[in-house]
Amino acid sequence: MQIPQTPQPADLPKLAATILGRIRGQGPRVHCITNGVAQNFTANMLLAAGAVPSMTIAPDEVAQFVARCDALLVNLGTFDDERRVAADIAIEAAAQDDLPWVLDPVFIDRSPARAVFARELVQRKPSAVRPNHAEFSALSGASVGHDALMQFARAQDVVVALSGETDLVADAAHIVAISNGDPLMARVTAMGCAGSALVAACLAVEADPWSASACALLMLGVAGEQAAQNAKGPGSFAVAIIDALADLDGKTIVERARVT
Amino acid sequence: MQIPQTPQPADLPKLAATILGRIRGQGPRVHCITNGVAQNFTANMLLAAGAVPSMTIAPDEVAQFVARCDALLVNLGTFDDERRVAADIAIEAAAQDDLPWVLDPVFIDRSPARAVFARELVQRKPSAVRPNHAEFSALSGASVGHDALMQFARAQDVVVALSGETDLVADAAHIVAISNGDPLMARVTAMGCAGSALVAACLAVEADPWSASACALLMLGVAGEQAAQNAKGPGSFAVAIIDALADLDGKTIVERARVT
Amino acid sequence: MQIPQTPQPADLPKLAATILGRIRGQGPRVHCITNGVAQNFTANMLLAAGAVPSMTIAPDEVAQFVARCDALLVNLGTFDDERRVAADIAIEAAAQDDLPWVLDPVFIDRSPARAVFARELVQRKPSAVRPNHAEFSALSGASVGHDALMQFARAQDVVVALSGETDLVADAAHIVAISNGDPLMARVTAMGCAGSALVAACLAVEADPWSASACALLMLGVAGEQAAQNAKGPGSFAVAIIDALADLDGKTIVERARVT
Repeated sequence: MQIPQTPQPADLPKLAATILGRIRGQGPRVHCITNGVAQNFTANMLLAAGAVPSMTIAPDEVAQFVARCDALLVNLGTFDDERRVAADIAIEAAAQDDLPWVLDPVFIDRSPARAVFARELVQRKPSAVRPNHAEFSALSGASVGHDALMQFARAQDVVVALSGETDLVADAAHIVAISNGDPLMARVTAMGCAGSALVAACLAVEADPWSASACALLMLGVAGEQAAQNAKGPGSFAVAIIDALADLDGKTIVERARVT
Repeated sequence: MQIPQTPQPADLPKLAATILGRIRGQGPRVHCITNGVAQNFTANMLLAAGAVPSMTIAPDEVAQFVARCDALLVNLGTFDDERRVAADIAIEAAAQDDLPWVLDPVFIDRSPARAVFARELVQRKPSAVRPNHAEFSALSGASVGHDALMQFARAQDVVVALSGETDLVADAAHIVAISNGDPLMARVTAMGCAGSALVAACLAVEADPWSASACALLMLGVAGEQAAQNAKGPGSFAVAIIDALADLDGKTIVERARVT
Repeated sequence: MQIPQTPQPADLPKLAATILGRIRGQGPRVHCITNGVAQNFTANMLLAAGAVPSMTIAPDEVAQFVARCDALLVNLGTFDDERRVAADIAIEAAAQDDLPWVLDPVFIDRSPARAVFARELVQRKPSAVRPNHAEFSALSGASVGHDALMQFARAQDVVVALSGETDLVADAAHIVAISNGDPLMARVTAMGCAGSALVAACLAVEADPWSASACALLMLGVAGEQAAQNAKGPGSFAVAIIDALADLDGKTIVERARVT
């Protein structure tokens, strides 16, 4: 029996190029339970990457959508009752089919009820959680740091894909820092939500969740740098990053990647 | 008594120019029961054409919105409970005022429950249904083809406005193929939804539903070609097609139309 | 005791420059109960101004979001049951913390039930209401005019920030006409909604509601004029106004302001 070896940080740029090629070749379906602010931008970012988004939250059909998908995103922004029910059904359907899924615990630092719900969802074995700094602290009770991320990843058996000025992606045994991106990314609503959707798209075509999560954030960061060259502000940047992601090639990822 | 004669395909480009002029002159109100992914883009496309969108789904006011409108769109994407109730009330209100309405059976190929609901709605006499290939098959049980479309149109007394690489618009007696458009249209979320809203806007100002439906898809296709000249990818294309539709003139439609 | 003096119209351009600086310096949090058409554009406009948006409508967390915010927007577009409940809770939470809030009575001229609800909300002491002409008439029973606006402001103890070709902002004792803006602003969906969100952002950093409301509409109008210089139509205009707002400086506001 051969134990598959997790790639090292230095392997990620080439792997990201490979994963992007797989997404474009296979067109994986990604079902998104996400908030109304993010739906349109998320769908367009997934389409730009080469994936096929769907977004229904109706309780009596979400299981059928998930059963026909390759990965699931559960995003807690604007988290109304119907989306909670939908998330519950969708996660159950994903578990039955062994589908990878991503939890984006949006704004759990603002709402204790939402933080409780997020902690319950972590028990249901997402492949990855994708918080920002404040959300990680609300989720884990710890401040952001390499040790805290790896400890949480180990304790919960989950990949932590933390967004920030430098992104950090940890599993129980590995951590990588990704320094790509542009400050304009923080000026566009739903950029983090779209990043989480890209993590789901990568999980659909790559079995190792640490590699998939890191490669997704690397793609997004490089696309952001390309987009910033053509942007006059956050409005045109939001448009340009969709173009940049659709136009992204493996060579650019490898040349621009800053991972350590 | 003079029986109004349905135009032939060759008449459609000039008719589309006329209909676009009517939309801009009259500013018809189009009420849209549509999904959260599509709402913003649909509203902006209707405004670009010269129509006035409204989007409420609240059960105790949707009838009053429809009663003040000139056409209705019912789009089944992200089809939650509240939208089902809203669709039911809106269709009833449209029937009472003899308003034209369009059914966009989004993703019914993915959800049996949604397909059943769509088939029930077809019984309530929409002026047009606007499926893609997979949705037409789920609706009719038949593969796409000229005969299948006309047969369905005849059996259900409805216009079928099928989107695809080539759009096909059929009623019981006529079918037209529209070859305008650009591949980028398939890379932008809610493009089909916006097309269905344009069908509704055209139905508001043109009594013959086959002509109205065909002219709407022709306008969208020509606007897409104009937009592609200024686009660097799907992000800028989604912006440029709104500009192109707002800027579209009858002369361009007539020059660029490819209808047979 | 010194009674604070309300600025005069001529003071507003410089005050708008000051308020914009405060928003960028303080990053006020603005919670928005708003419609699905407007959510994304509103969030991006708030971010462009320098504010931090949140948008949840879930009944059991909206109070906690409002309690952590600096101002509240209640927008009645696509006004479903859940948003009515959320508005009720949010307004109560705002009252407890003495937070300023804005009411945008979208489309109340189309729906009697919505108009009744809006009149009830006016009793709950918003800092400002932000109608267009038809909505003001539905709210007040009067036609738009300087006297009618000031009378309504006096009777209800509220600032009226009316949008139109010329914006008018009235309290019991003052009225200002703002002639900035561009016709393309009426061609983009949710532009009025975003304007109301900017009013909320200004109220978060400026205690006088008349000044805050007028300065918000002035900023929006000047940003619209800047955006129009780079726009080819309503699609690119919607993008350019986000860029323009992010790029807006006090000097440009003072130079371009047309207030009387």
